Amino acid sequence: MAQLDAALAKIDANLDTALKRLFALVAIPSVSTDPAYAAACQKAAEWLRSELAGLGFEATVRSTPGRPMVVAHAKAGRPGAPHVLFYGHYDVQPPDPLDLWQTPPFEPRLAEAPTGTQIVGRGTSDDKGQLMTFVEACRALRETGPLPCDITILFEGEEESGSRSLPAFLAENKAELHADIALICDTGMLDRTTPAITTMLRGIVTEEIVIKGADRDLHSGVFGGAAVNPIHVLARIIADLHDADGRVTLPGFYDGVAELPAEIAEQWRHAGFDGEQFLNDVGLSVPAGEKGRSVLEMLWSRPTCDVNGIVGGYTGKGFKTVLPAQAGAKISFRLVGTQDPQKISASFRTFVEARLPADCRAEFHAHGGSEAQQLPLESPALACARAALREEWGKEAVLIGCGGSLPIVGAFKRDLGMDSLMIGFGLEDDRIHSPNEKYELSSFHKGARSWVRVLMALGAA
Amino acid sequence: MAQLDAALAKIDANLDTALKRLFALVAIPSVSTDPAYAAACQKAAEWLRSELAGLGFEATVRSTPGRPMVVAHAKAGRPGAPHVLFYGHYDVQPPDPLDLWQTPPFEPRLAEAPTGTQIVGRGTSDDKGQLMTFVEACRALRETGPLPCDITILFEGEEESGSRSLPAFLAENKAELHADIALICDTGMLDRTTPAITTMLRGIVTEEIVIKGADRDLHSGVFGGAAVNPIHVLARIIADLHDADGRVTLPGFYDGVAELPAEIAEQWRHAGFDGEQFLNDVGLSVPAGEKGRSVLEMLWSRPTCDVNGIVGGYTGKGFKTVLPAQAGAKISFRLVGTQDPQKISASFRTFVEARLPADCRAEFHAHGGSEAQQLPLESPALACARAALREEWGKEAVLIGCGGSLPIVGAFKRDLGMDSLMIGFGLEDDRIHSPNEKYELSSFHKGARSWVRVLMALGAA
Repeated sequence: MAQLDAALAKIDANLDTALKRLFALVAIPSVSTDPAYAAACQKAAEWLRSELAGLGFEATVRSTPGRPMVVAHAKAGRPGAPHVLFYGHYDVQPPDPLDLWQTPPFEPRLAEAPTGTQIVGRGTSDDKGQLMTFVEACRALRETGPLPCDITILFEGEEESGSRSLPAFLAENKAELHADIALICDTGMLDRTTPAITTMLRGIVTEEIVIKGADRDLHSGVFGGAAVNPIHVLARIIADLHDADGRVTLPGFYDGVAELPAEIAEQWRHAGFDGEQFLNDVGLSVPAGEKGRSVLEMLWSRPTCDVNGIVGGYTGKGFKTVLPAQAGAKISFRLVGTQDPQKISASFRTFVEARLPADCRAEFHAHGGSEAQQLPLESPALACARAALREEWGKEAVLIGCGGSLPIVGAFKRDLGMDSLMIGFGLEDDRIHSPNEKYELSSFHKGARSWVRVLMALGAA
Repeated sequence: MAQLDAALAKIDANLDTALKRLFALVAIPSVSTDPAYAAACQKAAEWLRSELAGLGFEATVRSTPGRPMVVAHAKAGRPGAPHVLFYGHYDVQPPDPLDLWQTPPFEPRLAEAPTGTQIVGRGTSDDKGQLMTFVEACRALRETGPLPCDITILFEGEEESGSRSLPAFLAENKAELHADIALICDTGMLDRTTPAITTMLRGIVTEEIVIKGADRDLHSGVFGGAAVNPIHVLARIIADLHDADGRVTLPGFYDGVAELPAEIAEQWRHAGFDGEQFLNDVGLSVPAGEKGRSVLEMLWSRPTCDVNGIVGGYTGKGFKTVLPAQAGAKISFRLVGTQDPQKISASFRTFVEARLPADCRAEFHAHGGSEAQQLPLESPALACARAALREEWGKEAVLIGCGGSLPIVGAFKRDLGMDSLMIGFGLEDDRIHSPNEKYELSSFHKGARSWVRVLMALGAA
């Protein structure tokens, strides 16, 4: 325990210089979506390479068709140590609208809030502050002894703009990037004093359908009553997708959907999550999903079907009595457990075909999908992380879900065969992607301490 | 019968000069929707005024906020004669796309087709050729004796662009325009040898609804499963609007919808209308309306509900996992019999409100409506017209319906208390509103003869 305590003491003692380093990284406007910031992205990658090299990593900046990757490797002090891959992203969202920032987005500063000190600036939470918690943990461990694990680091520069270069990069560097487990610091805590580990990510299936009837738009006076209306057919299909209890009616849809483990259900019940407030914040009051499920279940552990877009006929101002030739909808299914995206896509298409009346046909367009990701509750790495976080925060880490998908987690699983341990220190109110983004100083400080503990625990396992 | 025969002989003898007059009118490019043609509209109105003045009418061009009206009056040869108001419109649709015309649209010509001679040019059928059948009938009657009826003529110049000036003009000139019955020549024959009288026009109710849920667009990963989706709510409402037999489910919707009189049902059964071909022409094969109804019933004598437009969420290319704050639809109901537009509008709104789940509300926007128009089968004027057309065409005129509404007919009924007798000589294949519009020479010739007979019959009644 000597190194652990020493490393934690280093983190505490060096907080000011750690902040200076974070400020230097935040000051680089590495917006990935706008080519005008390409040089800044390059600069941020070089800065990280240099930092990691200074910590003894074998660190390189690797060009891609888009923004560069940073890849770094460091060996543990002993052979046979576990190997972890840490992933983060150095690119940030554009800072617009600029006039809503209280101070310039790329001039980071500390601000005092009633709840504590905050680090303000674009990317402080998403994801520069978060990734630097890991770098600072590596520094503290380096300064107090050998690393407890073999560590590979991958910093991406296109996460905020679609990760277009990532799939090919993973495929080309499989052997180099493969590790026993991936560590990802791009998620959040339950609240400012309760750590969380994201162990469930919903997958997704996206389908676009176009229902076609007559070979041209018709006048509803001349043809109305005798000609099939594709909007009606589409509406009937959409209406049929849910039953009166809010369950999705596709045959086989719930195959692979398990009930929540009792331990997690118990955690969620006591997580202090206010489902009503969550809905109130967007002008709603009543959960609209499956009957008999809590809001957290609806969001994290239950699959869904949502129509994300629909269009047909005349949609401008005023009125036009057209009987349209076609109507279309974009429909997505959020997946959990071991639901199979391809089976659900096929079931959906069969479901639609079965509801087409005479003279109608359906065109289908897939827009991609991914399986749900679930870290097994019995994962040894998860046990290490839970123990480490319990030590640091004085309470049990809540095992949470995430309603959306993180493509990187699916890619690590699919392409590199790795599970991901998602530990992050962001808070709900960090204003990521918005003006005045902030990261709690306590998240930065105790986040670094947390990673020291997690790495030591993984190394000792 | 001496005047009747003399007038018919005049029509036959003067066909060439009648065609020259029609060509002169068609050559005036009186497109109403485009201000560039305003002078041409004025010219067409003046031309008509002059023609009518030449026939002894007290004829005036009356300015409006839009295109001018032509109003003309002529007295019958005897006091106590019936008074008819003839309505037509001198404005035409734009000729675009010009490159699809075989000859210039405003250079009318005769063309020989396998079925007979055709008059080709923009407006030959809609409505210049049709209205000139009536003017030529007046000429022939004038030249052979007194007019059999008091005749008022109203030519409008904005029918193809929404008739914006018409309501106020009717309101301001009620007394001047009121007659015993209106005669309208803007409809068609059953086929090239079978005359038709349009006695049923469907009315319409138009409703726009917007279903609102959350106070902003949401991310379907973060909120999907717990937040209400207005597209689903809208789809359910639309699906509920029809039952499995294709009937509209609004409470009270069929109040005022009578079964077709046996005589008309019999005519329609033998009208030679090929419902399958009608649908085949637009890529369809099976009537999609109420079970157990013929296509003609579906189009002419049964009410309908059609969604004319729907939009919600993301409708661009690709996919966006938005859970939209709202979704909207434009919905129209075609009315028949004595269905009450206001009651149906109210019933629809109640129907929607009853289907709104918690957290959803509906905004309603009315876009106008009109009652169905039905000329009573026992109308004496109808009996005169049927006898006159039977004489001219050698077969019974079919009493047909029209699936769309003609606002002028509603206005005459509502504002002037007049029924309308709709007799027209257009054919299905006249290409009105399209390139190479044509009017059959036989329609023009026998149309004029038909009006001579109708006017004589009305005058003798």
